[in-house]
Amino acid sequence: MTFHSMWAELLPVGRSSASGGYRRYAWTGADADCRAWFRQQAEDRGLAYEVDRNGNQWAWLGDPAAGDAVVTGSHLDSVPDGGAFDGPLGVVSSFAALDELRARGTEFAKPLAIVNFGDEEGARFGLACVGSRLTAGQLTVEQAHRLTDGDGVTLPRAMEAAGYDPDAIGPDPERLARIGAFVELHVEQGRALDLSGDRVGVASAIWPHGRWRFDFRGEANHAGTTRLADRRDPMLPYAETVLAARREAELAGAVATFGKISVEPNGVNAIPSLVRGWLDSRAAGQDTLDTVVGGIEKAAREYADAHGVDLDVVRESFTPVVEFDHALRDELGRILGTDTGLTVPVLGTGAGHDAGILSGSIPTAMLFVRNPTGVSHSPAEFAAEDDCVAGVQALADVLEGLARR
Amino acid sequence: MTFHSMWAELLPVGRSSASGGYRRYAWTGADADCRAWFRQQAEDRGLAYEVDRNGNQWAWLGDPAAGDAVVTGSHLDSVPDGGAFDGPLGVVSSFAALDELRARGTEFAKPLAIVNFGDEEGARFGLACVGSRLTAGQLTVEQAHRLTDGDGVTLPRAMEAAGYDPDAIGPDPERLARIGAFVELHVEQGRALDLSGDRVGVASAIWPHGRWRFDFRGEANHAGTTRLADRRDPMLPYAETVLAARREAELAGAVATFGKISVEPNGVNAIPSLVRGWLDSRAAGQDTLDTVVGGIEKAAREYADAHGVDLDVVRESFTPVVEFDHALRDELGRILGTDTGLTVPVLGTGAGHDAGILSGSIPTAMLFVRNPTGVSHSPAEFAAEDDCVAGVQALADVLEGLARR
Repeated sequence: MTFHSMWAELLPVGRSSASGGYRRYAWTGADADCRAWFRQQAEDRGLAYEVDRNGNQWAWLGDPAAGDAVVTGSHLDSVPDGGAFDGPLGVVSSFAALDELRARGTEFAKPLAIVNFGDEEGARFGLACVGSRLTAGQLTVEQAHRLTDGDGVTLPRAMEAAGYDPDAIGPDPERLARIGAFVELHVEQGRALDLSGDRVGVASAIWPHGRWRFDFRGEANHAGTTRLADRRDPMLPYAETVLAARREAELAGAVATFGKISVEPNGVNAIPSLVRGWLDSRAAGQDTLDTVVGGIEKAAREYADAHGVDLDVVRESFTPVVEFDHALRDELGRILGTDTGLTVPVLGTGAGHDAGILSGSIPTAMLFVRNPTGVSHSPAEFAAEDDCVAGVQALADVLEGLARR
Repeated sequence: MTFHSMWAELLPVGRSSASGGYRRYAWTGADADCRAWFRQQAEDRGLAYEVDRNGNQWAWLGDPAAGDAVVTGSHLDSVPDGGAFDGPLGVVSSFAALDELRARGTEFAKPLAIVNFGDEEGARFGLACVGSRLTAGQLTVEQAHRLTDGDGVTLPRAMEAAGYDPDAIGPDPERLARIGAFVELHVEQGRALDLSGDRVGVASAIWPHGRWRFDFRGEANHAGTTRLADRRDPMLPYAETVLAARREAELAGAVATFGKISVEPNGVNAIPSLVRGWLDSRAAGQDTLDTVVGGIEKAAREYADAHGVDLDVVRESFTPVVEFDHALRDELGRILGTDTGLTVPVLGTGAGHDAGILSGSIPTAMLFVRNPTGVSHSPAEFAAEDDCVAGVQALADVLEGLARR
């Protein structure tokens, strides 16, 4: 099966006809369809199929117990109304790369595996990378059992309904110990490759990133009769803080976004009592991120004071910088530089990935495929087929180089 | 029953122990309790109690059919988590003023009535002043029958469940033709009386006011990986527009508020595709309001263009200026000035009232009682008991002056 025909087969699964985007949430019917597709691909190629204790799917060529395995893969779930590429490009490219290596007649000195990690996007239960976090011991069983979706369904009940055993979940160090290298191919979620004119790149690091909740508390009042001078309107310092975040990020070469807001009482004729805004900010280094978020918070406090509004800032989550394994990264650069003549830019990235989670346990690397618009987490997410095929070739070269060692 | 004891009796009805605010929504249990209280007050005083075709409650002293009646009253329902005074102060003061006139031995040349208008706040079905609008023919039966609450219950079903006949509703010109003057006493929703040092004032007009929906449409994208320069983030022009609204209103001596917002997809790590903000704006005159809203819209378009964001502005509702009957207003001023020696400031107001609806059909006036904080539509809404008692005296004087004619 060619890359093209695999891609076409997966394309309609879980796609909303209303938005054109994907709604492949963990342990739903669309997710089950994606998983059935993965299993079929494994069996069609005579690979040994298995599901690990955390519901991640594996397809093995060679003996898993031999050790020093070369593993590639990504995820098949999506954000709400996400694009076709984020996740599935890595899984489809993995099978296509294996087909390419078989066509080349490559002989492998090590076992090779393709993986589909469960619940990477966290769209349903609010926490990203649940499958890889559990495996790496970065999420406890107790924490995972408490995860609940918007309809009040817990993760254990959802897994059970999908035919999995929620009591089996937990860390899986023996599985990780058998892996010598994990390489994840992913569509770029930005325009660095487009700007440099490259089809494929190697990731250097995942930027440190976090989420901060800004609670501006003022005083609810009648919007028609309350004099401006008598107001304590939290929408005003919120608005000023949104603009400050943009300025601070621009100054520092970072990113900062207010994309989620909650307002009380949220009435047209009511001055709000509470405006709650969530800041997402990321930067190439910890110092830069501290400067950006510190600057935003300082400005927010001044604005809040000026309007008689109280402000609480709560850091809801934080992930420090993830530096991918330098030796593996450099080896990928050598393999790709030598064998293909491609320029291989080394990219930073602002997005979390299963590869970032696993990098704490095993040598991990990422390949990116050019995204001409940079758009991601949207139905408009796109990569040209020529670039995807170049990605498959690069991944095949990398797997060949690593598995021959 | 004194003002104080009536007030204390009504105070716990429909009060949320969580917020301390009132949740007296039309045709609910709390509303039924308020209505039972009204009926009891009427019967205790030997007044003739009736409910009109639109569910408004009336208590008559004298023959309703005699014509040229003097009517006072307000409403008992509330906004979500509203205060104790907005509405109930007018109804309680009406009964207390009648008691005062009976104590004075006043003889009436005209019939007198106290009214409780249904569903003034529109908290449940989204449209204010339903009871008075239906009576005045400013809302058709078809429109009223289509009103639906947040749980999908229609107004007819809600009225039926509360024991009223939704097929009976409609215009009531004969009832209005019997009324010579309607006077509504209300807590001030602003600080004009506090600033002038007066306990009681007379309304001159209801400011023209409207609601405009601003739809800023950008492009959803990943908040972690999209370069600032590649973004079309609608939150940024929204924030700038919030600040522009404040500036324009300040310049013009008007009010402008963004109190309601809706964001898509409203995810912490997603640049929004849509930020929808609702503007409420009011001013003393039509020209001023046009200038304010025109200025905000012009600024919003410039901001949207600068960010590559599309903007649609839709006027969702608009109410032109309501000038209360000048002769009645001046007569109230004479009555209060002569009999009490009070200074009687003539106030503008930015809030809609049943008196504003009825002013198109019959001579109408409003009295305001001082609100030391100006806070309204909030559990913190307050008026001092001395000021409330002064309001009762002023209302008694007005009713005596009008009914003796």
